[in-house]
Amino acid sequence: MNPISTEQLTAAQEWRYATKIFDPARKIPAATMAALEEALVLSPSSFGLQPYQFLIITDRAVREKLLPFTWGQKQVTDCSHYVVFTARTQLSEENIASFIKRIAEVRDIAPDSLTGYRDMMHGNLIAGPRSNVIPEWATRQAYIALGNLMTSAALLGVDACPIEGFEPEKYDEMLTLNGSGFASCVCCALGYRAAGDKYATLPKVRFPADELVHRI
Amino acid sequence: MNPISTEQLTAAQEWRYATKIFDPARKIPAATMAALEEALVLSPSSFGLQPYQFLIITDRAVREKLLPFTWGQKQVTDCSHYVVFTARTQLSEENIASFIKRIAEVRDIAPDSLTGYRDMMHGNLIAGPRSNVIPEWATRQAYIALGNLMTSAALLGVDACPIEGFEPEKYDEMLTLNGSGFASCVCCALGYRAAGDKYATLPKVRFPADELVHRI
Repeated sequence: MNPISTEQLTAAQEWRYATKIFDPARKIPAATMAALEEALVLSPSSFGLQPYQFLIITDRAVREKLLPFTWGQKQVTDCSHYVVFTARTQLSEENIASFIKRIAEVRDIAPDSLTGYRDMMHGNLIAGPRSNVIPEWATRQAYIALGNLMTSAALLGVDACPIEGFEPEKYDEMLTLNGSGFASCVCCALGYRAAGDKYATLPKVRFPADELVHRI
Repeated sequence: MNPISTEQLTAAQEWRYATKIFDPARKIPAATMAALEEALVLSPSSFGLQPYQFLIITDRAVREKLLPFTWGQKQVTDCSHYVVFTARTQLSEENIASFIKRIAEVRDIAPDSLTGYRDMMHGNLIAGPRSNVIPEWATRQAYIALGNLMTSAALLGVDACPIEGFEPEKYDEMLTLNGSGFASCVCCALGYRAAGDKYATLPKVRFPADELVHRI
C-alpha cells in the first residue's frame, strides 16, 4: 500500500463541504462512481455483518418524488448520484447463517470452523443486549459507511452533501422498502458543486481543536 | 484540490482490516497523528454542530484500566493511540448559542444574521422531534467521524481497529465523563499491525456487491 501524504489528506478534508448547489449538468464518471461503490462495499461494520443496503438513485422521476419528503432540498434532484442508506430493521439467525456461509465460501474453510464466531455474534445480537437495538445498531454501521463515503468522495474530487433532513417513512414507502427488512436511515447526494454555490468559499467553522480533542 | 486516483482509494480500502494484533513497539509519528486529529476536527456533522469530543489516550496506566472493560481486547493497550469517541448526552440552547457565536467569529459576520439558522436548529433539536433522541443523534455524528477516521488512517498507511465491544458506563466512570455532558459511544485503536497478525492476510469477506448496492 502506497500511502498518500498528510497534506493531501488535509487538503481534501478542507476542500470538502456540505454542497448546497450541485451543477446538474455534471455527472460522476463511471470509473469514479465504481470506486465509490467499492468504498461502500468495503466499509467496515460490526462483526463484518454489513447490516445495510445502499440505493444509488439516478432515475429522475424517483428523485422528483423524494424531493418533497426531503425538506425540498434541491440536492436530491440536482446531484449526479443520490445515495439512500438503508439499515436492517431486524437481524435473524438466518442472517448470521448467511454471513457464516459467505465467510466459509470466500476463505474456503469449513463453516464448522466458525462456530465460535457464530456463537459470539449470536450471543451479542440475537440473545444478548444488542437484540433490543438492532435498527439503531445497523444505522450506526451505515453511518460508518457514510463517513467513509464522504471522505472517499472528497479524495476523488467529488462533492457530497449528507442529508438527514428527510422523512424516512415516506422514503420507505416510495422506495418500496416496507417488508424488505431494511429502512432508510440517512442519505448522501454526490456530484459536483455549481459555480454559484456561495457555501463553497465560506471559511469552514469548527470549534477550536483543543475543545474537540483531548489527549490523555 | 489534487485528487488521488481511484486505484489508490481502492487499494487503501483493500489494505485496511480490523487489526487484531498491533505491534506495541511502533508509534504513529507526530505529523501523521496531527493529520488524523485534523480529520476528526474537520469531520462533517449535523448542522455543523460537532456534538462530540475525542479522547486520544496514550497513557499506559489509563489503557490498562480500560482493558478489562473492553472484553480484554489487547488492541487497547498494544496500539499506538487509542481514541474514545464521546457524544453529547443532551443539547441546550447554550450549546446552539456557542455554535452561532463561533460561526459569527470565524466568518466575521453579525450573530444576528444567523437568526434563521439558529431557529432551524432550535426547531429541530430543542423544540422538535430530535430533542427526544439527542444522545443517539450525537452518537451517529460520532460514527461519521469514526468512518472518516478509519478511511483517513488507511490512506496514510495507519492501521485501525474499531471497537464497539466495551462497557460505556465503566469507561465514563474511568474517564470521569459523568456530569460532563458527554458519554463514550465507540472507540478506535490506531497503530501498526504486528507481523504475526494472521487476519492481515485473510481474504476480506463481503456479500456480493449486487446484494449491497442497488441502482435505481
